[in-house]
Amino acid sequence: MASQSPFPTLPATIAWREDALYLLDQTRLPQESVVERVTTVEEVWRWIHELRVRGAPAIGVAAAYGLCVAMQPARQGTLGEFHAALKQHAAYLDSARPTAVNLSWGLKRLMRVAQRADAADAKALYELLVAEAVQIHEEDQAICAGIGEHGLSLIKPGCGVLTHCNAGALATTGLGTATAPLYMAHQKGIAFRVFADETRPLLQGARLTAYELQQAGLDVTLITDSMAASMMAQGLVNVVIVGTDRVAANGDFANKIGTLSVAIAARYYNIPFYVACPSSTLDLQTASGADIVIEERRDHEVTHLGGRGIAPPAIRVRNPAFDVTPHDLVTGFITERGVVEQPFEKNLAALFAAGGGAS
Amino acid sequence: MASQSPFPTLPATIAWREDALYLLDQTRLPQESVVERVTTVEEVWRWIHELRVRGAPAIGVAAAYGLCVAMQPARQGTLGEFHAALKQHAAYLDSARPTAVNLSWGLKRLMRVAQRADAADAKALYELLVAEAVQIHEEDQAICAGIGEHGLSLIKPGCGVLTHCNAGALATTGLGTATAPLYMAHQKGIAFRVFADETRPLLQGARLTAYELQQAGLDVTLITDSMAASMMAQGLVNVVIVGTDRVAANGDFANKIGTLSVAIAARYYNIPFYVACPSSTLDLQTASGADIVIEERRDHEVTHLGGRGIAPPAIRVRNPAFDVTPHDLVTGFITERGVVEQPFEKNLAALFAAGGGAS
Repeated sequence: MASQSPFPTLPATIAWREDALYLLDQTRLPQESVVERVTTVEEVWRWIHELRVRGAPAIGVAAAYGLCVAMQPARQGTLGEFHAALKQHAAYLDSARPTAVNLSWGLKRLMRVAQRADAADAKALYELLVAEAVQIHEEDQAICAGIGEHGLSLIKPGCGVLTHCNAGALATTGLGTATAPLYMAHQKGIAFRVFADETRPLLQGARLTAYELQQAGLDVTLITDSMAASMMAQGLVNVVIVGTDRVAANGDFANKIGTLSVAIAARYYNIPFYVACPSSTLDLQTASGADIVIEERRDHEVTHLGGRGIAPPAIRVRNPAFDVTPHDLVTGFITERGVVEQPFEKNLAALFAAGGGAS
Repeated sequence: MASQSPFPTLPATIAWREDALYLLDQTRLPQESVVERVTTVEEVWRWIHELRVRGAPAIGVAAAYGLCVAMQPARQGTLGEFHAALKQHAAYLDSARPTAVNLSWGLKRLMRVAQRADAADAKALYELLVAEAVQIHEEDQAICAGIGEHGLSLIKPGCGVLTHCNAGALATTGLGTATAPLYMAHQKGIAFRVFADETRPLLQGARLTAYELQQAGLDVTLITDSMAASMMAQGLVNVVIVGTDRVAANGDFANKIGTLSVAIAARYYNIPFYVACPSSTLDLQTASGADIVIEERRDHEVTHLGGRGIAPPAIRVRNPAFDVTPHDLVTGFITERGVVEQPFEKNLAALFAAGGGAS
């Protein structure tokens, strides 16, 4: 089974054991590391909706297993009843986070299996769905491992690596994306230091990246976002690796707000800047960063922290969740198929033609 | 008297009325705006020590008035007793914040007056000290106004101004330093927008700058530090103005952590970057930024917010309070004597020779 973390000290975000789904509650990190068994379709929906399981790759896997959990009562019925319930539960789970592509994608893969299967009965069809969910889970781990292998040579002994937000194990079911080369280098005994930007406003760097790297025994130092340039000026950063939410055809990419600032500072100090990018994140239909729509989130994330106000009442706020970094600031994209260098327009298309994005 | 704010809607940090000292408690902003009368030398010491009054220029004024408050009981005694008490109280107040230059400077100016005065009795000497404190207060307001006048032409109708940390009215007894051109432009009816970086870890931008600009009726938008580059990329920022804690002879300058990142992004987008700099902040004894020692503060400021942990326990942290921005990223220094442009080494020295720094 694919449910065990490939790196023993990493927190497993999702586990499937003896026909049961276990999820790590990420909203309680880093204060508490709580794994709960999720037993109903309503619970699965709530966990995804409330970001207790988060990160695009992890959501895809959770949705697939979640649909299996939802179908367990229908195993005793007829095949006709099973298909009807499947359609209903998939539509329901798909509504948990309307904008998460991987959610729909994971559910659709199971629906396709059900449509094409020639199962003897409902129980047999259920087992085919579970097998597909396990397959999705294993693929996610393999993609992380591929990124790790291709990015490994960037992590030199004694070097300093800076990352922003959480493109880590907690966003996937494997080694993470931006973090995969770090975990692999650590496993090989390479000594290096990681700087984790705290990533305001939601602090994914402080709460999640610092936590998972610390848990895995890496040398990690937490800094505020405003300190990244200062660490670079002191010569402490030799390479930057970040994740991405979407890469346009020309190599412009969207990632958590603050990534642009890090990329500009890296260029100023001539520090290589890499983007860990599962091929499913490539969006060749989007020509450039100018075509990427940026979600603006609510003021409360900026003006409050843990329920406490940190700004004057009624203050005007901007809160873009992402920014777009132009491709000329990128040294390379680390994908599960290899590192893509400039010119990105040509080389990204070539990678895509060689096997296609996952979504 | 100099105790009234020159800008009626600005919070007055320090007031001297009918022989009494009133201070605005900045640790309670922005939730509460509380002015308290401070009546003993121990209270003055505590207010400065606990950063309830803060900002180098404001501390200089508070120290001078605070020493007057301390000397009030001695007005009834002999001149000899008065001089002895003065020495004792000045030394005590000087220990409230050992590294604040303006604290010593304000106290020394009163000590010098006492040494040189030919007063008839203790009461007359006390009045000379009060007159000197009022003089220091008025000078601080005049310096702010001078910076405002010389920086005013940078604020064009419809423009966007970005600032970092609080080099505002709350750090002085006047219009502030970086904020002085903004208040003057607003008073002249020029419409423009200000972006205030929240300034992690201590959030002076969110708590103080956003507050004082909002109180004065300016169009201010609060952003996280990580959003500054994104606002610039969108063409919303036309000029950056920040304060400084120390300017070296070659124009390298120290300011609140995060300033460097803003300066690098401004250069990337070809946005003019100005430093508001009272001549007292010029340190011609320091050759370059490499000679400026940066204070490293305690981890708790990064790992906690309002008493609440936001990071995993025992995480390693860096917390430099300042960074050094190289002079080649600076468009100009706005001083009370005019705007200094490149070459800074020559032009800053010329400014200093023309009248000297205040400290």
